[in-house]
Amino acid sequence: MLKVPEHQVAGHIASDGKLGPLVDDQGRFFKPLQGDSRGEHEAKFYESFTSNKKVPDHIHRYFPVYHGTQLVEASDGSGKLPHLVLDDVVSGYSNPSVMDVKIGSRTWYPDVSEEYFKKCIKKDKETTTVSLGFRVSGFKIFDHQESSFWRAEKKLVLGYNAAGARLALRKFVSSNSPADSNLIPNCAFASEVYGGSNGILVQLLELKDWFETQTLYHFNSCSILMIFENESILTKGGDNVQAVQAQVKLVDFAHVLDGNGVIDHNFLGGLCSFIKFIKDILQSIDQRDETNTSPLENGH
Amino acid sequence: MLKVPEHQVAGHIASDGKLGPLVDDQGRFFKPLQGDSRGEHEAKFYESFTSNKKVPDHIHRYFPVYHGTQLVEASDGSGKLPHLVLDDVVSGYSNPSVMDVKIGSRTWYPDVSEEYFKKCIKKDKETTTVSLGFRVSGFKIFDHQESSFWRAEKKLVLGYNAAGARLALRKFVSSNSPADSNLIPNCAFASEVYGGSNGILVQLLELKDWFETQTLYHFNSCSILMIFENESILTKGGDNVQAVQAQVKLVDFAHVLDGNGVIDHNFLGGLCSFIKFIKDILQSIDQRDETNTSPLENGH
Repeated sequence: MLKVPEHQVAGHIASDGKLGPLVDDQGRFFKPLQGDSRGEHEAKFYESFTSNKKVPDHIHRYFPVYHGTQLVEASDGSGKLPHLVLDDVVSGYSNPSVMDVKIGSRTWYPDVSEEYFKKCIKKDKETTTVSLGFRVSGFKIFDHQESSFWRAEKKLVLGYNAAGARLALRKFVSSNSPADSNLIPNCAFASEVYGGSNGILVQLLELKDWFETQTLYHFNSCSILMIFENESILTKGGDNVQAVQAQVKLVDFAHVLDGNGVIDHNFLGGLCSFIKFIKDILQSIDQRDETNTSPLENGH
Repeated sequence: MLKVPEHQVAGHIASDGKLGPLVDDQGRFFKPLQGDSRGEHEAKFYESFTSNKKVPDHIHRYFPVYHGTQLVEASDGSGKLPHLVLDDVVSGYSNPSVMDVKIGSRTWYPDVSEEYFKKCIKKDKETTTVSLGFRVSGFKIFDHQESSFWRAEKKLVLGYNAAGARLALRKFVSSNSPADSNLIPNCAFASEVYGGSNGILVQLLELKDWFETQTLYHFNSCSILMIFENESILTKGGDNVQAVQAQVKLVDFAHVLDGNGVIDHNFLGGLCSFIKFIKDILQSIDQRDETNTSPLENGH
């Protein structure tokens, strides 16, 4: 009963006999253990993290719930392979918009092989990892006009500069047609998705607080997933689209290391930069709203 | 009337016909403009920063006051050369203890030459720059028992691992003989120098607040100087050494770049890591004091 996940936006995708994650219809996500010990490493991280009493409960909820490993039929037809069993973080949504943002100004870390270092730093320099401290890895948006998903092209996403990343973060929370690159994103959902008391920004700030003091783990090459759902609601004025259930999740732990008493300054620095991008969008919305309403307020 | 600065702990030192900074007896510091345009670059930064109204006053005071450039007789005997004229940040002290900490998990930055990148990343990996997000570049301590300065050996300092850096930060605020590497640093001045309402930690946190939002400059390869003075005060119980005037200054701006709307996540991440090290020392002092006093408090 396992199938290819519909809402994955980055990483290995199961298809055409390729190995990739699978989901069931009970809300479970099956991630094949990657070769060269990375899979084992990720499983060990989940074991350690899940039982770690030093991690506060309000932080645990930013991570997928782990249910151990299990042998399941692999997506590439190679027979039964060990998979991590996780809660499928998008299973509660009908039409989730999803963005994957890899955090940190480097994806390599001390003591990796020269080969791995070179591969990582090349990509870190080519993308916004070095310059911004994060890079958008992929995203998809539910397009209400088309009633279908629009998916950003991987090649374009990895070619973003600072302006491209900023535009993608605006587009992600906009209701005008994502496929038309001539339209300026209207940021219709920005205040609901990024802002508000349960929005993305509040969640990122909670994570930041923890990262300022936690010295348990260094989250090398991890991603933040942002997930939300647009609900089309019929109102007097016509169709009104509202965004709900904005959620942040951390994923991809194949390169997590022990913190050894030092904070994860690489993740924290990138997270702070990402937070500033989100704040800038919210501020631009506020200013726009003020500009729109000021003539009325001034009695004109 | 210019002479070699007594309290410099890192960077080019003027001596034996070498080019380096000089000081006068009026509290001015003369830094020769470095070749290959770095000197010009640093002068331009000071011009921009000094007149930048977007930088709040309480942040300006963490930077040396700039008085333009001036042709003065160079320390290497090569005749008159242009020098930056700055306030000498240690001129108000008699016997300042000084530490230079280079902040950031990299000293290179986008668009540098391959040669410069390779030189920087080699040193960043060899030192604690990559692992801790900062490296101690040098320090000196006024030793009251000897009534003289003790200076950490450059070679040892650049060879520190995490434990070495931690020990140096403890030693820097200790009153037992710095020259004896078998003694455990007593951290006698930690609560006064690192702690307290005017201490180093409070100043670092004020800088951190600014770095979380400022997108004006990227402070590549800059250092934080920590300066304080121990005063020997005669009390009933005998000689009592007190630490005063703990001060943080940012120095070395030859590689500062425009922020272009992005925060300096490299500096901020390293700064947060450094802050955690300082907090850890203060916490260990608190715990020690609690342990020492608890039997009395418990009525034993």
